[in-house]
Amino acid sequence: MELGMVGLGRMGANMAQRLVKHGHRVVGFDPGPQAREQASQRGIDAVDSLTALVAGLKSTRAIWLMVPAGETVDRTLADLLPQLSRGDIVVDGGNSFYKDTMRRAAMLSEHGIGYVDCGTSGGVWGLAEGYSLMIGGDEIPVERLRPVFEALAPAPDRGWGRVGPSGAGHFAKMVHNGIEYGMMQAYAEGFAILERKQEFGIDLGRLAQIWRHGSVVRSWLLDLSANALERNPTLDGIAPFVADSGEGRWTVAEAIDLDVSAPVITLSLLERLRSREDDSFADKLLAAMRNEFGGHAIRKG
Amino acid sequence: MELGMVGLGRMGANMAQRLVKHGHRVVGFDPGPQAREQASQRGIDAVDSLTALVAGLKSTRAIWLMVPAGETVDRTLADLLPQLSRGDIVVDGGNSFYKDTMRRAAMLSEHGIGYVDCGTSGGVWGLAEGYSLMIGGDEIPVERLRPVFEALAPAPDRGWGRVGPSGAGHFAKMVHNGIEYGMMQAYAEGFAILERKQEFGIDLGRLAQIWRHGSVVRSWLLDLSANALERNPTLDGIAPFVADSGEGRWTVAEAIDLDVSAPVITLSLLERLRSREDDSFADKLLAAMRNEFGGHAIRKG
Amino acid sequence: MELGMVGLGRMGANMAQRLVKHGHRVVGFDPGPQAREQASQRGIDAVDSLTALVAGLKSTRAIWLMVPAGETVDRTLADLLPQLSRGDIVVDGGNSFYKDTMRRAAMLSEHGIGYVDCGTSGGVWGLAEGYSLMIGGDEIPVERLRPVFEALAPAPDRGWGRVGPSGAGHFAKMVHNGIEYGMMQAYAEGFAILERKQEFGIDLGRLAQIWRHGSVVRSWLLDLSANALERNPTLDGIAPFVADSGEGRWTVAEAIDLDVSAPVITLSLLERLRSREDDSFADKLLAAMRNEFGGHAIRKG
Amino acid sequence: MELGMVGLGRMGANMAQRLVKHGHRVVGFDPGPQAREQASQRGIDAVDSLTALVAGLKSTRAIWLMVPAGETVDRTLADLLPQLSRGDIVVDGGNSFYKDTMRRAAMLSEHGIGYVDCGTSGGVWGLAEGYSLMIGGDEIPVERLRPVFEALAPAPDRGWGRVGPSGAGHFAKMVHNGIEYGMMQAYAEGFAILERKQEFGIDLGRLAQIWRHGSVVRSWLLDLSANALERNPTLDGIAPFVADSGEGRWTVAEAIDLDVSAPVITLSLLERLRSREDDSFADKLLAAMRNEFGGHAIRKG
Repeated sequence: MELGMVGLGRMGANMAQRLVKHGHRVVGFDPGPQAREQASQRGIDAVDSLTALVAGLKSTRAIWLMVPAGETVDRTLADLLPQLSRGDIVVDGGNSFYKDTMRRAAMLSEHGIGYVDCGTSGGVWGLAEGYSLMIGGDEIPVERLRPVFEALAPAPDRGWGRVGPSGAGHFAKMVHNGIEYGMMQAYAEGFAILERKQEFGIDLGRLAQIWRHGSVVRSWLLDLSANALERNPTLDGIAPFVADSGEGRWTVAEAIDLDVSAPVITLSLLERLRSREDDSFADKLLAAMRNEFGGHAIRKG
Repeated sequence: MELGMVGLGRMGANMAQRLVKHGHRVVGFDPGPQAREQASQRGIDAVDSLTALVAGLKSTRAIWLMVPAGETVDRTLADLLPQLSRGDIVVDGGNSFYKDTMRRAAMLSEHGIGYVDCGTSGGVWGLAEGYSLMIGGDEIPVERLRPVFEALAPAPDRGWGRVGPSGAGHFAKMVHNGIEYGMMQAYAEGFAILERKQEFGIDLGRLAQIWRHGSVVRSWLLDLSANALERNPTLDGIAPFVADSGEGRWTVAEAIDLDVSAPVITLSLLERLRSREDDSFADKLLAAMRNEFGGHAIRKG
Repeated sequence: MELGMVGLGRMGANMAQRLVKHGHRVVGFDPGPQAREQASQRGIDAVDSLTALVAGLKSTRAIWLMVPAGETVDRTLADLLPQLSRGDIVVDGGNSFYKDTMRRAAMLSEHGIGYVDCGTSGGVWGLAEGYSLMIGGDEIPVERLRPVFEALAPAPDRGWGRVGPSGAGHFAKMVHNGIEYGMMQAYAEGFAILERKQEFGIDLGRLAQIWRHGSVVRSWLLDLSANALERNPTLDGIAPFVADSGEGRWTVAEAIDLDVSAPVITLSLLERLRSREDDSFADKLLAAMRNEFGGHAIRKG
Repeated sequence: MELGMVGLGRMGANMAQRLVKHGHRVVGFDPGPQAREQASQRGIDAVDSLTALVAGLKSTRAIWLMVPAGETVDRTLADLLPQLSRGDIVVDGGNSFYKDTMRRAAMLSEHGIGYVDCGTSGGVWGLAEGYSLMIGGDEIPVERLRPVFEALAPAPDRGWGRVGPSGAGHFAKMVHNGIEYGMMQAYAEGFAILERKQEFGIDLGRLAQIWRHGSVVRSWLLDLSANALERNPTLDGIAPFVADSGEGRWTVAEAIDLDVSAPVITLSLLERLRSREDDSFADKLLAAMRNEFGGHAIRKG
């Protein structure tokens, strides 16, 4: 079928290319000329405006947004809305907050436009291996997009599915990322313990390879860790600085809002915050307190 | 080749059977007549004493212990030692504490007997899928056991390897289990958040299936979770009571001993302890304190 | 001086009484007849409407709100606003969210009305011992209220102070409560460890009394714990169910928003959530996973 | 009465001086000439050998050890034992591990020598304010030492007491220190949140002073924090490096051993470990993993 792709960054361009490979036609828009140029070379009909994108699609249209979460989504929807017709469908494939999604779906619904939220996992590997797609929204538009989901997923019959009404897809993706934080932290701590036990001289890349086959902890994240550790066993040149993209924060906040105690997901987020502190006020105060009551020496900062 | 297997419980019997399937001869001992009976039916030469086991193996012998960690290992070694000859090899495939392993290896070494520690992961699925084997000990005995490891692992060239000297295998397995705790807790928290968000009515088994393909959180533990959640989506009839086998405790203690902060692995263990509290004194005292300072009502216990 | 007190619940009535004791005149309003009745007996001029309260105060007026945080504050301000005059001052002494406070202060400021936020700590003991008051807002209205603060505080020259502009008082009180959660949890855990070590048979109330004098952990919360533990050493009849009033949640959210890792305050909140779970889905899933991979028995729920 | 004090470091010398002030005679020994010199100036009969110390005391003797926990205690007891007589009492006032204490008490008991463990809290302030003393051991020797405890405590009738048999005093002190870690961390996190909220410009020393009077979080540790923050509000020149003395580790290990979940005490310890990491391998691996799956940029280390 035919799809408009708004946003031809790393994720959007790869997804569009995967759709093209599966025989779909993709009209793609990105404000950056270089992104459009590269998309053209990958078989995407790259256009230089939203208007051209809308014009390049037959009714009823399906337009997939792969743009940064937040204001960009609202702005894009505001630009698109006057150009769309009843029965068109917009998909938000990014990491939007699920409550924003619910608000947007209600707004578009008043105009007879379908709104589907699609939590998309797979990263840069999705182009080759397919994406895991958690979909929220009404059943009819989801069903109409079936060929798209079947092409994006690792296989037509797996790795994608409608999980609930509007917002459910992004909610599921949010929790997915929370789990991801927890798993990553678990591996990171484990390898850090092994690395510190220098008397055993364990080759961490090799151990990760052993674990990849038959162990209880085998996973795709372990596959990636094995790659990273085999290539650079001491992780030389990598700063201990861990960014976070926002979904972990939402998961922590939602868990608390739902009265669910989620210590591991929460601590995984806090550890990322901690990784970015190089002069912790809390730790300085602890040192100062110890000095006050016990006369313990303070290190000069 | 030929191997003695001491302990024909769930793990030992499965491993022996896998070896037999791969053309090895296994003489197995277990104190339980029923375990021996079942082992016989699975192609294992089951004998009713350690003496018979030793007598049933040609020199130089290789004997694999698959018995509960702790005293049972020491007792078995004490019983075996007078019957063994220089050049024999004993493998401890159980979850022994690595410092015990180092002590035992040193002791057997004085008698010219090789001691190999093999952290074994894979659970009840190992029989069919193979085990992940983290091996510690001298290179020569490990190399001699190569045919055994190649048969037990998922494939001859993967899923097993020597990771360091005596103790390194059990140390690696200990950390493996710590990581396992963290991963399990991450999934458990994520699904608990999803379950609590009842307005979306997300089918957890179906979502787990979607995640199994293409997502960042795909793993073997997720495969198992998907099984469990598809079979029993509300987990009815399962008590929220989580046992722990000891390796998580060791991992936490070792991390602290090495000055490594491992909050996620640590909290995963604490959450298991917490799951077994049904009348927490700490929580009662918190309720009592709130009553003291704020006059907040106390629930009757 | 003269003050209007809106809300004659536990906190409001006690504070009004303390002001009366210090020679101030307090006109108090509460929607409940019983609260008004009791207030009258405590020397407060209790009236049955906001209108009567405003009418009962001379210009320029000072009105202290001691009502539940959230909508009640907004509703009360909406009711008060048309009756107030330029130069009047409203104080919010409750646990309002500081961003609400900033919004309200800006709104009242447009009408020439001063708005002061006063984080108030001390609980039911404040009547006798005085309250700790963290004050936000412009300097002029704060200074005008000096006699009120001097009477409410434990002493005229201590336990109160302006800490910053509008919102700063409630922000400080929010963090105060986060610290309180952490301290309470620290004591609760410590006494739980002592209680579990039954072989020593330590009398917890007696130990708490010992700690009250000279130890590093002496505090007012310890004084209260000592009371509770001496009266009921086994905490019989108290359910292990710990409520939370919302300020802990805000502290956790603010810390994350500020990229500050605050694991202890955060875990203290999560432990309270956990105390209210009696059938944790996460723990059930952990038990189910263990059964899947290891064949470990599940307890029937 | 008369007491021997072994160890005239910061704690031992202060305690001896406090005893002298209360009219007791103290014979003190320290291997360091300077420590002895200073002790002499403070009214202590300083001697240069254990033998001289024993010789300087009348039967039946009471000897207080204030030496570093661990081997030094064992070595000192080995040196003392041949010189002591039945009925003598040895007190260990340091931070010994309670299981060591139980072993030592049993050993001395065979020689008819009493052994009392005294957990001592108060730090450098104890000289002026008195110490909080948690005492373990048989009732008779504890009773004989009553004058010593009455002098060391803040007042004869408070701040000291026998809490149980041998080991109970050190166990209580261990937990005391665990609680201390949790409280300190709670304050440190709270002040760190306040410090980061720069828009309010809250003066932390001043706020700490306000909290000292009437607030729920008032405590001695807050008094010290107020001192530190008033003197140096930005904590300039203090490195964010927090040592730990070992008792926190024991508390964490004991809690786990007793199956008590103590997340706040535990995380307080981990945060101290974390404060000493400046190049966390775990965080580097997290950064590497993010790069693997999402192509996220890595900071150069």
